Amino acid sequence: MEASNVSTTTTTSDLRATFLKVYSDLKSELLEDPSFEFTDESRQWIDRMLDYNVPGGKLNRGLSVIDSYKLLSEGKNVTENEVFLASALGWCIEWLQAYFLVLDDIMDGSHTRRGQPCWFRVDKVGMIAVNDGVVLRNHIPRILKNHFRGKAYYVDLLELFNEVEFQTASGQMIDLITTLQGEKDLSKYTLPVHRRIVQYKTAYYSFYLPVACALLMAGENLDDHTLVKEVLIEMGTYFQVQDDYLDCFGDPEVIGKIGTDIEDFKCSWLVVQALERASEDQKKFLHENYGKADPACVAKIKALYKELDLETVFAEYESKSYEKLISSIEAHPSKAVQAVLKSFLGKIYKRQK
Amino acid sequence: MEASNVSTTTTTSDLRATFLKVYSDLKSELLEDPSFEFTDESRQWIDRMLDYNVPGGKLNRGLSVIDSYKLLSEGKNVTENEVFLASALGWCIEWLQAYFLVLDDIMDGSHTRRGQPCWFRVDKVGMIAVNDGVVLRNHIPRILKNHFRGKAYYVDLLELFNEVEFQTASGQMIDLITTLQGEKDLSKYTLPVHRRIVQYKTAYYSFYLPVACALLMAGENLDDHTLVKEVLIEMGTYFQVQDDYLDCFGDPEVIGKIGTDIEDFKCSWLVVQALERASEDQKKFLHENYGKADPACVAKIKALYKELDLETVFAEYESKSYEKLISSIEAHPSKAVQAVLKSFLGKIYKRQK
Repeated sequence: MEASNVSTTTTTSDLRATFLKVYSDLKSELLEDPSFEFTDESRQWIDRMLDYNVPGGKLNRGLSVIDSYKLLSEGKNVTENEVFLASALGWCIEWLQAYFLVLDDIMDGSHTRRGQPCWFRVDKVGMIAVNDGVVLRNHIPRILKNHFRGKAYYVDLLELFNEVEFQTASGQMIDLITTLQGEKDLSKYTLPVHRRIVQYKTAYYSFYLPVACALLMAGENLDDHTLVKEVLIEMGTYFQVQDDYLDCFGDPEVIGKIGTDIEDFKCSWLVVQALERASEDQKKFLHENYGKADPACVAKIKALYKELDLETVFAEYESKSYEKLISSIEAHPSKAVQAVLKSFLGKIYKRQK
Repeated sequence: MEASNVSTTTTTSDLRATFLKVYSDLKSELLEDPSFEFTDESRQWIDRMLDYNVPGGKLNRGLSVIDSYKLLSEGKNVTENEVFLASALGWCIEWLQAYFLVLDDIMDGSHTRRGQPCWFRVDKVGMIAVNDGVVLRNHIPRILKNHFRGKAYYVDLLELFNEVEFQTASGQMIDLITTLQGEKDLSKYTLPVHRRIVQYKTAYYSFYLPVACALLMAGENLDDHTLVKEVLIEMGTYFQVQDDYLDCFGDPEVIGKIGTDIEDFKCSWLVVQALERASEDQKKFLHENYGKADPACVAKIKALYKELDLETVFAEYESKSYEKLISSIEAHPSKAVQAVLKSFLGKIYKRQK
């Protein structure tokens, strides 16, 4: 979800600066929240914890609320206040993401995140990070209350964030019980399971949530936008399949990290596709070598992926997804909504990172 | 918060049975939540996780929503549906408590809870418990949506649970950064810090939340009930001070567990009172022996508590709190509200467990 167009660079960096200014404003409010009597130490703790975990990512999810709202407003003048509100909703999504990442890193025993040690690995943090995750999550309704309390769509916003959080946690649950509890049992890795994990764990909050926020701000009823939801979930699924593909076949120099899905026994789209296509012997080979830290085993798996021509399988999946998405989008009656969806698709189609 | 009156035993056990029936109903709904496509495995996982963590406590917080609602309704007939709704809110509080306990046990590295291994110590659970905590939390808005969506007080309920969760997490944060991050620095343990931890971490959700739920159901505006809130927070603080006292001076046979606050370097009301009263030598003695696993050190701390006559200090605190609470309660214009508050106070005053 990186901006793909060089000509938009200036605008993008302006927007980013505006967006980051809103982060400071929201943080200041939270550090003076009248519902809690902070000690100096706890205020400093939150300040540092937020700066460490919330704004360090690519901010694509948050920024896309503003983009989407502008596209939905078409010719109408978007006021400074509306940009502020769209930014606040964007930050709620970034806060939600930070909450999940802080906890995920603990569950996965990860070491680094966004090029620095995971929060729970920082000196004197440790298991306090679990509660910090909870605090991050609790900031969302505080932000919503501070800025949307009087809006007609306030209760819809609360319900939207609640539902999407529930779906994300549920997707994460399937991922965890399939991966960890399954004790390296590849037979659990099937296409429907992969689709479910990806859809619930990633697509709802990364793709549907930003647009749903913009729609609510634009006065729309979300029940009238089931097609939008379907397209965005489909797009989010496609995005994650790309992610799985790039983890193995992408250029580490370009994507900025070295993939470890094979070593980690992840329920990746690639292993699922391999299992679908493998002979009995190849299946046995997969069971023997998948999820091992040994570089030789990883190389064997990659060789099998090439043998099964998963690069072509992916290229076909990619073009079919694109066609399907474009035709769904063009079936939508509103040009503004089409523009929002095409903007998302344009940012991810054939991405290399 | 145990029922203190033998004559109410039958009614209490009937109420308990009704309440537990509602748990089954709510669980069944959650296992069929249309917002998520369960796999059989994930449905079984949630089923077992709920049974393990939600209903095994004393259920006082949950049951007191029903009690309070009945008292607020005075002579009026309380319908079966109203009992169901009050029970559902009671269960939301029990779910909230389960969420916090599952995560607290991970953070504290605890071994047992309610007489069985902590959830994260159960075979094949481990760190999945972090996400299970998140799932428990996410069930609350699902229950509220399923049963209160059309009610006039729906948005107030959502905000109430959000605010109380925020306060509880904030109290937990002060507790964690004072205890863990403080690296056994007793100078951080002062009365204002103790009061804040107790008030935010326990009093809001255990005392204010059940009554606030009943008040909303009774059609009241919570902004009109600041006195009720103050009294309940005061009562919750008093309850936790009792807890701290009983941890050291209570009879393990009666309270059902052996206290370890001294070994665990807890910011207990007793150590705070001891620090307030200690001579320089006694302070040195406290610093040397508090927070050590060695039984000899624990015995030395207990001896110092006796020397400083903390038993009398507590007895005086207890009777002063009681008088203050009673006079605040009797200043309240509504007899029904007085009855609710006196019922809470009656259950905890001079409790031995």
